[in-house]
This record gives sequence, C-alpha cells and structure tokens, in this order.
Amino acid sequence: LQPVTYNRNIYFDTSPQAVSLYLLYNHWLPRVLVYFFILVDMSLAVFEEPAVLPLPTWATMLVELLCLLVFTVRLVHYAKVIPRDKFWKDPKNICIICIVLTLIDMIIYGALTATNCYALRWSRVLRPLLLVNVTEGRQLRRAFRSIRNALPEIFYVFLLFMFSVLIFSLMALKLLGKRGLKTMDGSPYFTNYLEIVFDLYVLVTTANSPDVMMPAYNASFIFTLFFILYIFINTYIFMSAFLAVVFNNYKKYLKEEVRQLVRAKRHKMVRAFAVLQERREEGGELVVTQANWNQLVRLVQPDISNAHRELLWSVCDDKNQGFIGKLAFVQLADLLNIEVITLKSRPHPLQSICPTLYLSAPSRLLCRLVQHRGFTIMYDVIILANAVFIGLDEENPMISNSEWVFLFLYLLEILLKLYVFEPRSFFSKHSFWNWFDTIIVVSALIATIINSALKSVGGYTSRQILDIVFILRVLRLIRVVDSIGRFRTIINTLIRIGPAILTFGQLILVVYYIFAMVGMELFKEKVKFYDEDSNDPAKAYCGNPLLKGTTFAQLNYCKNNFNNVMSSFILLVELTVVNQCNGFATVTHVSARIFFVLFHILVVIVIINIFVSFVLEAFYVEYSVDKGDLQTSLERKIEELELAVAQWYRTVDAFLQRMFEADLDPEDLAENDDAEAQTNFANPSFSSV
Amino acid sequence: LQPVTYNRNIYFDTSPQAVSLYLLYNHWLPRVLVYFFILVDMSLAVFEEPAVLPLPTWATMLVELLCLLVFTVRLVHYAKVIPRDKFWKDPKNICIICIVLTLIDMIIYGALTATNCYALRWSRVLRPLLLVNVTEGRQLRRAFRSIRNALPEIFYVFLLFMFSVLIFSLMALKLLGKRGLKTMDGSPYFTNYLEIVFDLYVLVTTANSPDVMMPAYNASFIFTLFFILYIFINTYIFMSAFLAVVFNNYKKYLKEEVRQLVRAKRHKMVRAFAVLQERREEGGELVVTQANWNQLVRLVQPDISNAHRELLWSVCDDKNQGFIGKLAFVQLADLLNIEVITLKSRPHPLQSICPTLYLSAPSRLLCRLVQHRGFTIMYDVIILANAVFIGLDEENPMISNSEWVFLFLYLLEILLKLYVFEPRSFFSKHSFWNWFDTIIVVSALIATIINSALKSVGGYTSRQILDIVFILRVLRLIRVVDSIGRFRTIINTLIRIGPAILTFGQLILVVYYIFAMVGMELFKEKVKFYDEDSNDPAKAYCGNPLLKGTTFAQLNYCKNNFNNVMSSFILLVELTVVNQCNGFATVTHVSARIFFVLFHILVVIVIINIFVSFVLEAFYVEYSVDKGDLQTSLERKIEELELAVAQWYRTVDAFLQRMFEADLDPEDLAENDDAEAQTNFANPSFSSV
Repeated sequence: LQPVTYNRNIYFDTSPQAVSLYLLYNHWLPRVLVYFFILVDMSLAVFEEPAVLPLPTWATMLVELLCLLVFTVRLVHYAKVIPRDKFWKDPKNICIICIVLTLIDMIIYGALTATNCYALRWSRVLRPLLLVNVTEGRQLRRAFRSIRNALPEIFYVFLLFMFSVLIFSLMALKLLGKRGLKTMDGSPYFTNYLEIVFDLYVLVTTANSPDVMMPAYNASFIFTLFFILYIFINTYIFMSAFLAVVFNNYKKYLKEEVRQLVRAKRHKMVRAFAVLQERREEGGELVVTQANWNQLVRLVQPDISNAHRELLWSVCDDKNQGFIGKLAFVQLADLLNIEVITLKSRPHPLQSICPTLYLSAPSRLLCRLVQHRGFTIMYDVIILANAVFIGLDEENPMISNSEWVFLFLYLLEILLKLYVFEPRSFFSKHSFWNWFDTIIVVSALIATIINSALKSVGGYTSRQILDIVFILRVLRLIRVVDSIGRFRTIINTLIRIGPAILTFGQLILVVYYIFAMVGMELFKEKVKFYDEDSNDPAKAYCGNPLLKGTTFAQLNYCKNNFNNVMSSFILLVELTVVNQCNGFATVTHVSARIFFVLFHILVVIVIINIFVSFVLEAFYVEYSVDKGDLQTSLERKIEELELAVAQWYRTVDAFLQRMFEADLDPEDLAENDDAEAQTNFANPSFSSV
Repeated sequence: LQPVTYNRNIYFDTSPQAVSLYLLYNHWLPRVLVYFFILVDMSLAVFEEPAVLPLPTWATMLVELLCLLVFTVRLVHYAKVIPRDKFWKDPKNICIICIVLTLIDMIIYGALTATNCYALRWSRVLRPLLLVNVTEGRQLRRAFRSIRNALPEIFYVFLLFMFSVLIFSLMALKLLGKRGLKTMDGSPYFTNYLEIVFDLYVLVTTANSPDVMMPAYNASFIFTLFFILYIFINTYIFMSAFLAVVFNNYKKYLKEEVRQLVRAKRHKMVRAFAVLQERREEGGELVVTQANWNQLVRLVQPDISNAHRELLWSVCDDKNQGFIGKLAFVQLADLLNIEVITLKSRPHPLQSICPTLYLSAPSRLLCRLVQHRGFTIMYDVIILANAVFIGLDEENPMISNSEWVFLFLYLLEILLKLYVFEPRSFFSKHSFWNWFDTIIVVSALIATIINSALKSVGGYTSRQILDIVFILRVLRLIRVVDSIGRFRTIINTLIRIGPAILTFGQLILVVYYIFAMVGMELFKEKVKFYDEDSNDPAKAYCGNPLLKGTTFAQLNYCKNNFNNVMSSFILLVELTVVNQCNGFATVTHVSARIFFVLFHILVVIVIINIFVSFVLEAFYVEYSVDKGDLQTSLERKIEELELAVAQWYRTVDAFLQRMFEADLDPEDLAENDDAEAQTNFANPSFSSV
C-alpha cells in the first residue's frame, strides 16, 4: 500500500473494487504517463506548420490521436472511480469537450488538406486546457479559480479605467487634433479618435513614452500637463488600483480556501473516527484505542519511526489512558504535518573507524579551525578574488591556470567540511547550500577537465563546454550571499516562493500557448528574418515592403515574429515586458492591435499582478516570522497578546465549525487538498502549533 | 480665541506670555506668509540662470535674501515659543544650517561673479529642505520619516539585487563578449563589463527591452533564455520584492505611529484632567464637573452646537451624575472626532414662501418625476448623446448649435433639482457631484457665451477660450460614473486618497527640485531645441555634434533637456515613466549615468513603491468597509466575532497603556498630531466606534 497523498478529496465509493480502481488511478505510473502525453501533445506545435522542425502532417496527427486516446482512457478510468452522477457534474470534464472538438477539427482538417483547400487547425488553442483540466493540475486550477474570482472586481476597475482613457482621448482629440501637428514620420498627430485611444492605452504600458507626447511638447510645454495628468491617473493610480484589487481578492480567497480546507479536513477526520470508534464501557464516550490508532498511522505514513509515533500518541493521549476521544483524534492530521527533527548527534564515521587518529590533537585542531568564523571569511575572500579573476581576460595563461587553483581550493573546502561534519547531516534535506556547493564544484571540475582534455588532444576548445564552464564558475560566486545574515531572510523567502512560481509558470505557459497559436495563424510569415550575412535587399525591411522605413525595421526587430512556436513564445515574453506591437499592425491591419491589447490585459494586468500579490504576501509572512530580533520588548509583549487572541479566535472558529457542520456539503469541499501545502507555507504558525 | 488645531504637540511653556507667543506663532497669517515665501524661494529657479524668464542676478539674490530673512524671523519666533534646550535638540533646525549655508553660498557667488569667475549656486539644492523642515510641513516630514524607516530594509534587498545584476553581467560578459557580436550601430556588443552592468540595470526598468537582447537573439535563440531568466529574476521578482519591503514597512510604521498617537493623546488628556479635576466629596474619586467640561468643549470647538454638546455629555456621563471620572474624560478627544450629522428635514424654501403653488398637484408630479430613476437614466442617455456630439466635427453648424441644447438641458436639470431638493442639502459639504455638476455647467455656460460673443463681434475665436470650453464639455461626461454603484466605491476610494496624494506631490516636488538643480548644472545647454520652422542644420542633432546619428536625435527628443527648470521637471517626469538617458551620457560622460540610476532608485524604487503601498492599503480599507453586501452570512458572523476580538484587544492595549505610561517620554511623541487625520482615514472603524 502506497501512502495516498493525492486526490484525497475526490469522492469515491468505498467498495473494495472501487478502492482498488481508485488506488490504480492514483498510482504514479498513469499520472506520469498522462503528464508525458500532455507534454507531447503541447510540443506538437514545434513540429506542425509553421514548424521549427517540420514533420509530415500525418505523423503529427497520428501522435495527436495517440494522445487523445490516452486522455480518453484516463477519463474513462476516472468515470469508473467516482460515482456516475458526480462525474457528469464535474467541471473538469471540459476535457471531454476538448477531446471531441479536437477530433472534429482533425477530421475537417484532414478532409480539407486532402482536397487541397485552405485549412486551419483551430483546435490547437484547446490543448493547454487539458493541462488545466486533467485531475492532476490541481494547483493550476486553483490559480485559474483565483483569477476567475478576481475577474468581476478587476472588470469594474477596468471599465472605469477605459472610461478614463476614452475621456482623455476625447480631450486630446479636441485639444490637439486641430492644431495641425505632425508626428515624427510626418503623419497628422492625434486626429483619429481610435488611434488616440490606442496610443494612450499604450502610454499606460509606458511603451511609447515619451514619443507620443513629443509633437505636443514641441508645440507648447502646456500640453505636457495633459500627458502628465494622464500618466499620473492612468499609469500610476489605475495600475496600482488593479494591483490593489487583485491583491485584496487574492488574500480574501486564500483565507476562504484555507477555511474550507480546515473544515473539510475536520469533516473527514470525524468520518474516520466514526469508522474506528468503539465504546470502552457501557454508556461511556466513543473512543479510538491506541492499537487502532497505531495501525492507522502506519497505514497513512509508513515512513514514520516508532519513536515518532509514540511521541504523537503521547501528545494525543495526554492523560495516558490508552484511548483517545473524538477531539484528540481530529488533531491527528495536524500532528502528522509537524516536522519532527530528530537531532541525533551521530559520531563521525571516521571516529568509529579510526578513533585514535580522528581524536588526536592535530585532527581536533583542524576541526576547530574549519568550524571557526575565520574559515568562512577566508573562503568569502577567495570567492571575491575568484570573481575578479573571472572578470579578467581568460586568454592570459596565468588567469586560466589560476582556475585550477580555485577549483582545488573549493574542493578542499568541501573535503574539509566532510572531514569535520557528519556526512549525512552535511547532505541533509535542509542543507541547500551544501548541495549547491558540491554540485557546482564537482560539475565545474568535470567540465574543466573535459575542456582541458579536448584542448590538449585536438588543440581546440568546444564553445558549448566552455560556456558551461563559465556559467558554473559564475554560479559559484552566488554562495557568498549565504554568509550574510540579512540576505538569508530574503533568499529564504525567494526559495520558498519556488514551488508556487512553478504554478505561475504553468499558468503563463497556458496563456502564452493560446496566444502563440492565435498569433501564428494571424501573423505567420508576415515578418521575415534574414541572416546576418544575407545580401537580400528585403533584409532592411524584414521581407515585408509595408515595413519600409518603420521603426520596427530600423531597430532590426525582424526576429521578433510569429513564424514558429519558439519565436512566438520569445516575442510574447518581450510583449509582457514592453508592449510594442506597431510593426504587426502595420503588416496586417489596425485591428490586429486588439490581439496585443487583450494580451496586455490578461498577462500584465491580471497574471503579473497576481504574481506580485503572491510575492507581497510571501514577504509579509516571512518578515512577520523573522523580525524577532528587530522588535522592541513592548512590541513583543503585544505580539504575545495577539497570539493569545489568535488562539482564542481559533477556539471560536472551532465552535463555529461545530455549529455549521450540519449544513456542510462535502461537494463544496472537493479540490482543496493541495491547498494544504500552500497553507502551511502562507501561515507557518498554523502547522507549528 | 481661535481653535488651536495645529502644533498641538510642540512643547511650550504654560506662562501667559509664552501662550500668547504660541498663539501668535499659530496664527494663520504668519503660517501662510512662511508658505508664500517658501514658494517664492523655490520659484526663483524660474528666474535664475538657466532661466525660463531671465532676471538680473542682483534681483533674484535680493528676493532670496528677503526669503531668508522671513525664515530667520520665523525660526527666532519658534525659539521663543519652545524652551531653549528643546529648541537646540529639534531636528527641524536643519533649517538653520540651510539658511547659513545659503548665505555663505550667496556671498561666495556674489564675490566670484563680481570678479568674473565661474561660480556655482550649489545651495539651491537646499531650498526644498526648507519646505520639508519648516514646522508646518508635518505630513511631508512623516513621509520622509517613512522613507527613512524603510531604507535599511530596502538597502539589503537592493544589495542583493545589485549582486544579482553583477553576477548576470559577468555571465553575459563571458557568454556573449567573445562572440564578436555587433549592436545596431556597429559597436561591439557586451564586451565592457561596466557597460553590461548599466545595460542590464536599464533592462530592469524595461526601457531598453527588447533592443538590448536583439543582437544575441539574432545570433541564436538560446541566448534569449539568459535574458528571460534575467527579466524574470530582476524585473519581476526583485521589483516585487522592493514593493513588498516598502509595503511591509509602510504598514508596520503606520501601525506604530497610530499607537504612539493614541498614547500621546491619552497622556495629554490625563494632564488636562489633572488641571480640571476636583474632589466632590472627602475621600471620593477625582472628577470633572459638567460646568468645567462645557467650558472646555466650548473653548476647544466653539462651532459645536449646544444640542450636540449635550449629547456628548450624556454619552460621557451615562449615569447622569453631573460629573465624570478620569476614564470618561479621556474619551473626549475621540468623541469630538465623531461627526454627528444632524438630519433635519427642512422644508423647501419655496414651500414656505408659496405653499399652495409648491404643494399643488402639478408641482408634486414634477417632484415625483425628478426623483424617479427614469430621470437619472434619461440624463445618462443625454450625456452619452453629448459624448457622441463632442466626438463629431464641431465645424458643422448643426453640431456647434447642438451644444446650446445640451447646455440648456444640463442647466434645466440643475434648476429642476434645486426646485425639488432643499438647496442647502443639495449643496451640502458631502454632495461632491452636485458641486461638480453645477461648477462645470455654469463655467461652460459662461465660457460658451464669451466665445460666441467674441465670434459675433470680431468674427474670430480665441483658441484659449475654445480649449477651456472643450475641456469643460468633456469633463461633464465624467458625471455618468456616479450613476453606477460599483464605480462609486472605486471613485470614493480615489477621492479619499486625494489629500495624501498632495503629500506625495510635495515629496516628489522636493526630489525633482533637487535633481533638477543638479541636472541643470550638469547638462544645461548640452542639448538644444530648435523651432519647428528653423533651418539650422544643427536641428537634426539637437545642436550637439556628439548626438549625430544617435536614436536620441533621430526620435527628435531635443526638447527633453535640462536647459531650464521647466524642461528639467518635464524631463524628470519622463524619466520616472521610462528611464531613457543615453543621450545625456553621450553629450557629457559615461559617468553621467550615475545621476539617472540614482534618480531611478530614489523615485521609482522608493517613492513610487510607497505610493503604490499607500493605494494598496487605501483600497484594502475601502473594500473591507464596503464589502458588506457581498459576503455570506457565515462570513459576517465570523467578522462580528473578529470585531469582538478586536474590542478585547483594545482593552488589552489600554491595559498595556497604563502599564507603560510610566516610562513614556513626551518628547518621543512630538510631531504626531496630524497623523490623526491619516488614521481616521486609514482605519475608519477607529473614529466611528
């Protein structure tokens, strides 16, 4: 029996057959397979027209069919696991629609291509929805839910913002349109209302600042007042308002999810208690015995040690009665979340092998030296010296040979530390920097040796290996931040954000994928890139005469195009940073700007703001945990009181919990299990009580 | 006796002479005078070299001397008001140093100019410090204090951020420097370490995206990975981290200031109680009688009505004993903050004058019609129609005549409303939109009449008056947002932010002024602007051969210069939005970039983030107050409990308060009085208890 850590909240039958189906469903192999096929399905974009690596259409369609088959099998399995009526209500089954639509599209496309008609694979935008909607994409669905929740509020601010842009545009038209001003390229300035609206919208993204204002400024400095007011209201106030709305919603729904999660957990623990309960004596209360409890814990977390289990039991059964009541039993889930660090002062293996040598005076001195602060400082100085050497020209043989010295010094450091500290604790799960150091130094050693070998044998250096060597060398320098305490808080926060960033990565991937697919259909081959040494005259205007003389061509942006999925993704990243799209409106039609405005709204206004909210909240938590040494004693006293209040609040919550348990619908609580990881992170005090 | 509402926290003698000096110090006339002379002093930059309107040096220096004299008198007065030892410890007296330094600078400058030597008025950067440090600039000082408090934390994140930029630059140097790539203008790409650091720093501001990456991208798409990683870590993560740090500090110090403020208030109320207290009976507790209390309230707030005062007393003396104890007395300050809205249903004046007509059936029907929802909707439709007409070409006589129709309709609306609603409540303090409407419509009427008069008399239209008419017309459209409830919350938040934005405005003004002064010394006349119709060949390169062929000249940025204080301010606004400064480094020296980087750090990373924090907090408060109708009943119940907890917390705070009152130093509490306005805003529940 593997520990069941996934899909704890899906609703399944408790008959033995259904349970075994459920366990198979949660087995790691089918889950990994589904992920693999989603990846394959999405990466088909690399091989389909317009392709990075072209493959015949029949091949990609065959692979896609295979993927669809796998998804269908997975869905059928899921349908068998959960009750029929629940299955049809599940919003996750958007997948079914996606699969059917994709099939229809493939048939149409196949038929049209066979008859040599123009055909469009429109169903490709549906592919990322599979990533969202397979049951494994729980975190991603939560992110989407959080966007959906924030949307109404964002929408109202957005309406007001657009109203403001429209009013300002009308004012600009009236104030500037009749003055006969000209833009840089000689076209009339601010005479078309829709053009003004678009220009002012882009000004909010700061992409065309100060260009859009220069003609008016050149005419009179009074007009800058208009632009300054506009930038102040729309760029600063409204963009902050978007962030504020997203941030508030984020916090509100985070709280709500945590609350639901806690409720769902208790509800399940009460159900588990009902299964395990027995009556010790006639008329006495219902209890769970230690034997049953032990069996349960062994089943749920087989990797827990006996001593640890005994400890947990003694916490639950504080009166040492041999059984526990409902209230103590419900704690179990929280107890299992507490990380018990077993601090065994294991002797160093060398001490057991050769005690006399290891405990001799010189050896002890060495240990003391390595543990001394001076040792760390010395190595920080070495790292700084190394930074200087990296910056110097590596063609100089002295410099390139110094690399060996540094490698030797770093290796020596690791070996010395391994001599002094117990290896298993040195390479423990929490020693991020030890792992980092060792991996970087060993890889650098290997890469440098390969590089030297290549050089001495063939007399040439592989550019790729040299690049890797350089990157590894530079990465080594990062280690220096660990020595400074103030940096560690920040770094720890950033490392903790890591897992959540992966979710954002997926979210961005989904949105980029959809926009890339649409963008490729709209703009493929409109802008062409010519090699550096190409002599084609079309190179000067990116292969499209419409671009002649535009800033797009002048700035040599030809490679920013939608000609394949790779370029599209890179272009979308650029658009996220600065929304410059005039080139594409020039080569197609003015209405192409809608595509870019939509992208800006969705990615910059919504997703990036959610990301920023997330970072804000993470830092808030980290700082409120770590500020211990900064606060005065008065503040600390107040905080203790606040903690007491929080405890009281929790009691109240428990009371409410019991009050409202009656009208609790387990269906509402589905999909919330993974939130736990999030919760423990967002509110550390929660798991450490 | 005027109500003493300012400088309540300065420490002054209680002797009659000192009190009268203190009252004179707080009289509105000297305070307004000081502000006026600060304005004069700062606006001298307009007349001094490099001047917008040149004045002879002796004239500006004479005015400056006069200003300095006024400030000195004010300082001497202040020194007389507060005890001598307090005066010398006061950090506000940076003013003295500023004045002395300015005098020294003026003497040196005068002497040097007299002997025709090169002279620099370096003390001009000190002028805004006067704005910060005259005793009236309390809000501004608070803003600076909040920056000072946030600086250490920001500094550590900044160090880490710079470390990251340096590491990435080193990597870029190693990866890209040796590949022989060329930038757009043919210069070698990424070969100089300092250049790379600067380019990558600018990339964080997104000003040179995607230009900085194009040469590498053109060589191979693999390098974009480097830039994407860089943008992700530095632009998104670190910039969010800056915001997070500023936001956390802002909240922390806001709380701290509120706490200190509450403590100071109680401390003073206790002192006032000690003055007014008397013992009613032998051995009984010390109390304040109603007569004394009334006298005090009349003195402090003379504009309060008798009925209102009676109400307050009955709240304090809930047992109706005729006297109150210490605890009830201390409440007074909070009680006076409660806004008691006296809702008198006054009859309409017309009803009193001519009741038969006003209460006749047609008049009542009219009232009902105007109060009907349809009336509002009708006028919303009229406004929208007006918007369309404004958008059309006003040369068309039908369109321009339609303006009179709209004006008539708007005027009719106001008159009808005045007929239906009581005029004094229609124009009450809180009816923002009524005021807005009336002012806009009446001014539009006046401006349109003047415009028509000019047209019919001289046959010409004044461009200025036409501009004003247009602006007023467009502003009228804003009214439509008031009809939509969801917008009102957002608009209310924005209006409430108003006063605080003025503080930020001053803050920005101070920083801009300093940078403008330095910038003018460094860059004046390096870039010249030529008129549109000038035929000077130097126009193509902004009068500086060094700019030949640069993007700065190509994009016609010549007017973005530091040639006078006006251009400098506009340029600094542009730099706040997008930090593009390569032109100025070209015309002077590479090290000029330091100026722009400093500006970016101070304005964008610090001040703009404080502004965003402020908006975030304001929206948080507004949403948590207004969300009443959105939450479920369960949430509301939980909130009620939270309120109870908060109340309990306040009791605890009061207890702590008494505990720590002994070691409270009144000096620590100076300068906190105006925080009250802020507090009431930031935490509305505070004043409405």
